[in-house]
Amino acid sequence: MIHYNQIAGQKIQRIEALSDGVFSIALTLLVLDMKVPLNLGFKNESELIVGLTGLLPKLLSYFLSFLTIGIFWTGHSAQFHFIEKSNRNFQWINLFFLLFVSMLPFTTAYLSEYIHFKIAVGLYWLNIFLLGASLYLNWKYALKKGFLTLNDSKQDSLNEITMAIKKRIIIAQALYAIGAALCFVNTYLSISFIIIVQLNYVFGLVQLKHKPK
Amino acid sequence: MIHYNQIAGQKIQRIEALSDGVFSIALTLLVLDMKVPLNLGFKNESELIVGLTGLLPKLLSYFLSFLTIGIFWTGHSAQFHFIEKSNRNFQWINLFFLLFVSMLPFTTAYLSEYIHFKIAVGLYWLNIFLLGASLYLNWKYALKKGFLTLNDSKQDSLNEITMAIKKRIIIAQALYAIGAALCFVNTYLSISFIIIVQLNYVFGLVQLKHKPK
Amino acid sequence: MIHYNQIAGQKIQRIEALSDGVFSIALTLLVLDMKVPLNLGFKNESELIVGLTGLLPKLLSYFLSFLTIGIFWTGHSAQFHFIEKSNRNFQWINLFFLLFVSMLPFTTAYLSEYIHFKIAVGLYWLNIFLLGASLYLNWKYALKKGFLTLNDSKQDSLNEITMAIKKRIIIAQALYAIGAALCFVNTYLSISFIIIVQLNYVFGLVQLKHKPK
Amino acid sequence: MIHYNQIAGQKIQRIEALSDGVFSIALTLLVLDMKVPLNLGFKNESELIVGLTGLLPKLLSYFLSFLTIGIFWTGHSAQFHFIEKSNRNFQWINLFFLLFVSMLPFTTAYLSEYIHFKIAVGLYWLNIFLLGASLYLNWKYALKKGFLTLNDSKQDSLNEITMAIKKRIIIAQALYAIGAALCFVNTYLSISFIIIVQLNYVFGLVQLKHKPK
Repeated sequence: MIHYNQIAGQKIQRIEALSDGVFSIALTLLVLDMKVPLNLGFKNESELIVGLTGLLPKLLSYFLSFLTIGIFWTGHSAQFHFIEKSNRNFQWINLFFLLFVSMLPFTTAYLSEYIHFKIAVGLYWLNIFLLGASLYLNWKYALKKGFLTLNDSKQDSLNEITMAIKKRIIIAQALYAIGAALCFVNTYLSISFIIIVQLNYVFGLVQLKHKPK
Repeated sequence: MIHYNQIAGQKIQRIEALSDGVFSIALTLLVLDMKVPLNLGFKNESELIVGLTGLLPKLLSYFLSFLTIGIFWTGHSAQFHFIEKSNRNFQWINLFFLLFVSMLPFTTAYLSEYIHFKIAVGLYWLNIFLLGASLYLNWKYALKKGFLTLNDSKQDSLNEITMAIKKRIIIAQALYAIGAALCFVNTYLSISFIIIVQLNYVFGLVQLKHKPK
Repeated sequence: MIHYNQIAGQKIQRIEALSDGVFSIALTLLVLDMKVPLNLGFKNESELIVGLTGLLPKLLSYFLSFLTIGIFWTGHSAQFHFIEKSNRNFQWINLFFLLFVSMLPFTTAYLSEYIHFKIAVGLYWLNIFLLGASLYLNWKYALKKGFLTLNDSKQDSLNEITMAIKKRIIIAQALYAIGAALCFVNTYLSISFIIIVQLNYVFGLVQLKHKPK
Repeated sequence: MIHYNQIAGQKIQRIEALSDGVFSIALTLLVLDMKVPLNLGFKNESELIVGLTGLLPKLLSYFLSFLTIGIFWTGHSAQFHFIEKSNRNFQWINLFFLLFVSMLPFTTAYLSEYIHFKIAVGLYWLNIFLLGASLYLNWKYALKKGFLTLNDSKQDSLNEITMAIKKRIIIAQALYAIGAALCFVNTYLSISFIIIVQLNYVFGLVQLKHKPK
């Protein structure tokens, strides 16, 4: 007899479609918080500019949240390029990943409001850590269960791809952890470090050279 | 002559795309309610922690809503793995299913606010029941109308798949009904029971053994 | 030389993806308005039930909006089952259709708030009329430009499909117009008539018999 | 050894799915701001009409935002019709484009609130400029990296397509810049000019004639 859990979770396209839906919402969630200030009786252009600067913190936290979610969307789509099968457990690993994606706008907004508190930095770091951990688990599980496709890569390169993904997540998470730990020195230093790490991943600035085999 | 209802509803991909859109929104709806508390004049880290605990009920109801919607998304995608055709009536069964999906964040938030009232438990259970009933109807209708694909399964296994799906929905709904009935003893007991059932389905803990034929 | 407008708008899948996104949001927009009443100091179950009845108007307008959007989503997907090409103008016809879809939650909520005013009925009817008109234009344009596929239908049945679609939209819109005109007698009568027409299309109750050729 | 950045960003469908998700949200964002006015004690139809006119500015800014986002969605889908490959950098160009898409409802609402201020016109123009610039970069990068498909076009027409896309973006942006510069004369004149340019692109009114080669 077939158990329900054997037939569940086989449609990989559904995971991708749901993920892109949740990512779209998470990407735009903080823009909902940017309200146009009303009836403030601005008398001239310079007063309006002053009024706009009041929106800067929200704009910055929106931008930070956008970058972070973009980084993890890039990572998610990089992995799914090689994944062609799925099961029930794999769907749930992804659902938990999406849970952490949807929490990020909140933890980012919380950070921007309470940036001088270690708790706020810790919460933000925890969210990034859980994103990295679930994305790592996503690949490990797919690898273990043979969900990966080889249609544009040989077994050799599959091993190398796995190495590249592992290395990327581990180095990134180590840098984020160092950044978070810096909050015991100074929270602004801590956040600056984390943002520099993120900008590096966005613009692909530092790419460690590899000797060809 | 062709009647409009004969030509309507044939595009199965559209049902899946719309469903994933509605699921994405439902999954993230309660996170919109988690607002960063502003200007509360926290003086130190421990006051901030106390402030955070005030957000816990909202976080928990978000988490509960996420799990429940995840369970039904898993169920929905499991069934659609085998469905390749559709018609107008089938589209409407799915639209009603999506109506119940979109209501869940509300009934969950209502439950978390009025957890000591039987009415709130009843409302939450009713929502879960309607989700299960419409998902069951979805399969029954697809089976009756021959909308199922056999491309990766023989007729035999189709019967077994139907058995597995039916059994899953009926057992789950029986457990939810028992949980809801417990509210006449105590609403906290009732909700705890329902959450344990849900966690079981999320993590696939209890899997009844089957003797192979 | 190629003009930009010749190369634009050729990707039909993008129209469908954008449409399903906008439909998902429109379907769930009014549920965002259903807020759990807080701190009302309910003392017992019957007080809670009284409190719930206060949410009924919002629930009903959500339900009405859901049905109407569902009807037009069904119509939209029915037509796109046969459409395989597209151009820039066709994209814009669809964008205007989506504009009217996204307005519907507002006009429905407006109607439910001001149901005893002819203006509210008129606004709601105007929205439904624009939806019908743009959907009709969608088919006419696709037909004229040869965007239709024949892969599961011969030319004969294409003519019949066109007849069925035209008839459906014209009869439905005529019924909605009669319903709207009834507001000069009584707005409740007018709305009841429109809702009965919509329920008829949801459940496919009245299907005019056709003699086979 | 393979570097992570070599394996990232190869799935073009993911960019399109995420884009359509963000576009759907951006298209409907301003409709969330249109709230039904409550408890205003309207006594007759004419008072209700007066009340409705109070919603006109929001409706107009929603409509303007819808048109602009529609124009850029059309442009985005026109380019992606010819793009079949992607990489990490290309994904980030698109993410920044989506950032500007998601900002547009805010800058449009800001403009409609402070239409008599040059700053508001400048902000709105900046958003449109960034949209155009990132869309232009999108094509340039795809062209340079050989991400374009030739399956329905020969090399000759690819060159012509590139010409058409470049010309379109440059002419449109030049017109927007002229419109924005007019704000030093009068902001209403400036906005009127920009809206006329947009309506021209929506309805494809002016199509410069080309002599066939």
